[in-house]
Amino acid sequence: MTAVLDHHSHDTRDKLKALFKNEAELYRPRYNMSLDDERQLAYDRLKRLCEEKVVSVRDFWDKPRNVFATHEMAGMCDGSLSTKLTVQFNLYGGTVLKLGTTKHHEKLCDSIDDFSSVGCFGLTELGYGNNAVEMETTATYDADAGEFIINTPSTLAQKYWITNGAVHAHYCVVFARLLMPDGTDEGLHGFLVPIRSEKDLSTKDGVKVWDMGYKIGLNGIDNAALWFDNVRVPRDNLLDATASVSADGVYTSSVEDTSPRRRKRFLVLADQLLSGRVCIAAMTLGSTKICLDTTIRYALSRLAVGRTGNSDMPIMQYELQARTLMPLIARTYALNFALNYVQDVYEERTVKGASVTDEEYEDLVNLCCIIKPLVAWHAEHVATTCRERCGGQGFLAANRFGEAIVGAHAGITAEGDNKVISQKVTQQLLKHVDKKKVAEHIMVQKAPFGFVKSILQSFRRPSGGSDVTSASWQKSVMEARANHVMCSVAAGLHDKIGSKKGDRGAMFDAWMMELSDEVQGAAATWGESLVMKSFDDAINSLEGDDAALKPTLEKLRAIHAMDSIQQDAGMLLANGIITSSQVEAMNTESRKLCRELVHEVENLGAGFGIPDWMHHAPIANDWEEYNRTQNDGELENQLYRK
Amino acid sequence: MTAVLDHHSHDTRDKLKALFKNEAELYRPRYNMSLDDERQLAYDRLKRLCEEKVVSVRDFWDKPRNVFATHEMAGMCDGSLSTKLTVQFNLYGGTVLKLGTTKHHEKLCDSIDDFSSVGCFGLTELGYGNNAVEMETTATYDADAGEFIINTPSTLAQKYWITNGAVHAHYCVVFARLLMPDGTDEGLHGFLVPIRSEKDLSTKDGVKVWDMGYKIGLNGIDNAALWFDNVRVPRDNLLDATASVSADGVYTSSVEDTSPRRRKRFLVLADQLLSGRVCIAAMTLGSTKICLDTTIRYALSRLAVGRTGNSDMPIMQYELQARTLMPLIARTYALNFALNYVQDVYEERTVKGASVTDEEYEDLVNLCCIIKPLVAWHAEHVATTCRERCGGQGFLAANRFGEAIVGAHAGITAEGDNKVISQKVTQQLLKHVDKKKVAEHIMVQKAPFGFVKSILQSFRRPSGGSDVTSASWQKSVMEARANHVMCSVAAGLHDKIGSKKGDRGAMFDAWMMELSDEVQGAAATWGESLVMKSFDDAINSLEGDDAALKPTLEKLRAIHAMDSIQQDAGMLLANGIITSSQVEAMNTESRKLCRELVHEVENLGAGFGIPDWMHHAPIANDWEEYNRTQNDGELENQLYRK
Repeated sequence: MTAVLDHHSHDTRDKLKALFKNEAELYRPRYNMSLDDERQLAYDRLKRLCEEKVVSVRDFWDKPRNVFATHEMAGMCDGSLSTKLTVQFNLYGGTVLKLGTTKHHEKLCDSIDDFSSVGCFGLTELGYGNNAVEMETTATYDADAGEFIINTPSTLAQKYWITNGAVHAHYCVVFARLLMPDGTDEGLHGFLVPIRSEKDLSTKDGVKVWDMGYKIGLNGIDNAALWFDNVRVPRDNLLDATASVSADGVYTSSVEDTSPRRRKRFLVLADQLLSGRVCIAAMTLGSTKICLDTTIRYALSRLAVGRTGNSDMPIMQYELQARTLMPLIARTYALNFALNYVQDVYEERTVKGASVTDEEYEDLVNLCCIIKPLVAWHAEHVATTCRERCGGQGFLAANRFGEAIVGAHAGITAEGDNKVISQKVTQQLLKHVDKKKVAEHIMVQKAPFGFVKSILQSFRRPSGGSDVTSASWQKSVMEARANHVMCSVAAGLHDKIGSKKGDRGAMFDAWMMELSDEVQGAAATWGESLVMKSFDDAINSLEGDDAALKPTLEKLRAIHAMDSIQQDAGMLLANGIITSSQVEAMNTESRKLCRELVHEVENLGAGFGIPDWMHHAPIANDWEEYNRTQNDGELENQLYRK
Repeated sequence: MTAVLDHHSHDTRDKLKALFKNEAELYRPRYNMSLDDERQLAYDRLKRLCEEKVVSVRDFWDKPRNVFATHEMAGMCDGSLSTKLTVQFNLYGGTVLKLGTTKHHEKLCDSIDDFSSVGCFGLTELGYGNNAVEMETTATYDADAGEFIINTPSTLAQKYWITNGAVHAHYCVVFARLLMPDGTDEGLHGFLVPIRSEKDLSTKDGVKVWDMGYKIGLNGIDNAALWFDNVRVPRDNLLDATASVSADGVYTSSVEDTSPRRRKRFLVLADQLLSGRVCIAAMTLGSTKICLDTTIRYALSRLAVGRTGNSDMPIMQYELQARTLMPLIARTYALNFALNYVQDVYEERTVKGASVTDEEYEDLVNLCCIIKPLVAWHAEHVATTCRERCGGQGFLAANRFGEAIVGAHAGITAEGDNKVISQKVTQQLLKHVDKKKVAEHIMVQKAPFGFVKSILQSFRRPSGGSDVTSASWQKSVMEARANHVMCSVAAGLHDKIGSKKGDRGAMFDAWMMELSDEVQGAAATWGESLVMKSFDDAINSLEGDDAALKPTLEKLRAIHAMDSIQQDAGMLLANGIITSSQVEAMNTESRKLCRELVHEVENLGAGFGIPDWMHHAPIANDWEEYNRTQNDGELENQLYRK
């Protein structure tokens, strides 16, 4: 099962598992530490991981999935490690690779790989988040000196949240508005700015580093606010793959962009946010797997009141536990298959030499933008629910739910707020909406409630057979749901904008002030359909020995889909997409399947492929043994480990 | 508005607000601290609070609501402070008060009030949680010495999670199985066991204190695992209000209990868990208010893209923000009124001299058991959602969402796991279920889908008019929902047990293995009806100047109720309790009301009555000013404060 779920980069995963075993002392979770020590530990862990040479920034050229797999493994180990990793290899390293040219690659790629030079990614500004059009940081070209002058003009323009910035980074890729000697504003560009000495890590002149201090978690990450006081960098430090400035100050760009704010150029620059979303999804999924498997193992070993009144029944056998955990397990499998699909597409369409149509690229953007929200929200939900279902034990730091909860929160916000990037997805999808379907939708919605409406609805009810557990029915309902919500957005815009077409203000009002439920729903339900399809395709493609996994995966797929459909049951019933008897049937079938799978739950957890030595949580091991001696809530004593 | 929401104990609240102002340096949140310092700070904060003499353990005799109000105020300030408070005054203090007799009161009550002697509550055991029937700790009476011998026989029997235990407590009320010289096991009783010297805090002989170390948060609380190695305490240390042992070893109890496991006696002993639930609800509500008001203030001051494309629109104006926050605000008001009702009833039925029927007491138990889950789950949902809606800023420790999330988790599990005590509520309610309604329910459920079923359902559709925003319709739907789910439990038991009535095993199977969704749902929907009724009653009782608040409160009540109903829309539609057109109408009306209330949102936040000086979070203040100078993520610089 693990090989099927992991799907690719098996060798990298195996090597990292071996690393975590061989260097158990380094990678064991620790809690009672100072902030400085916590940051140093995250640094040491990443440094040691880099020494394994399993991942390279150049992987983006030929095997980006290897970068993603590394993120998932690191995410199982430590959220601070994986965040420092993603900034070094994806945001910073990937940007140097893709926006830089040979001179930058020769200078930096090797030292990125072995972590001997540490980088950070200076995009976000305090006042504007990632809203490129408002950013204030400037890079003014001085033709006489052949230098760019990087400057932070205001409090709101300070580069904010910069991972690796507070302690470790030598370089920062600063995104700044390029001002030419003649005053032209060419929009945001990326500049490589040395911020610390390679020798002694002292801060460079003109660079101000403000430590951001404690966060709600992941405190191994050293976040900083960065200020630049007219810091000069050589002309060569412009990352010039798509735009360059000649010595005498002539600007050329391969990205045509006549919009006053040069937004299009920015999108090229921020390309690493795209792979970044896949990285975040991968590391968050890693943490989710640890969290769920821990909960499963505890639920199998924790005894509570059984039939006789004695404490002799594993709590996993309670329907409460099974009905809570099983849909979470099923959805984790589902999202894993969907993430695999996104990673496959990413690799196929971005490796060197790939030829991609605009439409294919747009589809890839949508995939990256939807998978991160779905995985990150799920991670938060899993961590919160598992914490609760483990009771007091869930509250002990050593059982690691705190890390999982906070890590999920970081995933929800990092590389684009989940809800903001969901809007972007809907915006893209809207371009391809079928106008005939929208017209039909409007007709049905406008029909009076009662007989006529229900007749109209019944004509449009998805087919797919009568078995609510079948892939065909579930897929057709999910597609009908996604179509319904997308049509609601289109119909809503039609209704609210009407004759004011092309009026930017009217569009803004409708989109931001009146249709936000539909806009969010359209992206989410499209994503759900995608997850369903990926799951089903993955099952259908199983061959040879793997085909034996089908029955179990079919059950998980059915549970997951019914859960997803039930969450919108009100909307689906009200619009005649499903019927009352189907709601009742799903309730019955889902409970039945959850009960059946309780007997396989240990294997389902084992399917995540987490070796015993990566299970540090006492409750995932012999927790009675752990509590036989004083432990101070730390994990030094290894005797309790399986 | 604040006076209406606060409802009682205004003087205590005012004094505590003044304390937090006058001792701003002590009560300001701090982050970069060692574990030792964090615990000492929580101790110092509670010690200073006690010096105000606004709360006394004796308040349980005549004004328990004053204890609850103190919890809410402390909950706004610091979760570790409020947890130490609740253990000292409620679990430990309240138990000494109610299970102890005059000799104990004279010795301890004053020193509980001024915190000069610190106590802890030794109930939970590692292996059994609060499952009294399994607990292993023993207290063997030695008639010759006139002493009880307290002993921990196994790893699973260690007293676990004991707040105040690791560092500060002088006494522990240990719940132990009383073994008489003749070998009789009289079940659990409470014993006052000195665990540390009053002089130098050295641990007493035979007592082993294991520090539990780091938790996922609230690390100002010093939790311990406690072991007793045949520790001897004088006969007087039995808390003997309901049971005593004479010098020569004769046991008498006022609680008749012939059950082999003496469960009934335990329920009397654990009475403080009941008020404890109200305390937890109060402190968690305090934290929720801070969290929401912080989010409102930030949403009003954070600008993002507006109609012109510039960053000039407060994000509060986005429908996304309004639709997310308004139902949370509305529910916070709703739960506040419900908690007020529970506190009123608690005071009325428990003060000295109150005469209470069994039925009234049972009702009180239900109220305490449902309000804690509802408030704690809501707190978790609010904190998680607000963190997300504040983006990166929500991730900074200084903005306090981490404390709110983790505090809510503590509330979910402390004083009884939310789901476990929900079961208890359903169990109680089931006794009073209307058999005629159950029979009707079974008849409708058994009807075939289609025409007949929908006719039957329509007969039973709640009345209450056609306006989905009206209190009458909303109340009738909520009552019908609660009735439906409760009947499902009864019908399910009838169906599954059938002829095996009285068969304990069959009952266990049905309850724990087959009906858990219904059992949970019955408690929750009953609770929702209660919340609705409390809200409506509170609005209707407004008089004089307060009557001006009615229109706003009506809107909040309507939003909250529609939100609650929409969450079960699938089930309600499938069972004909509401119609498709009502679902659509709720959607329209709820959005409309959310939009209307955006204009009042600052006042709604202000209604929580949090003075500016209790708003420490930078984003609740002038966050640009906060970020003008280096702050290291700490709150020392007060210039940014309003």
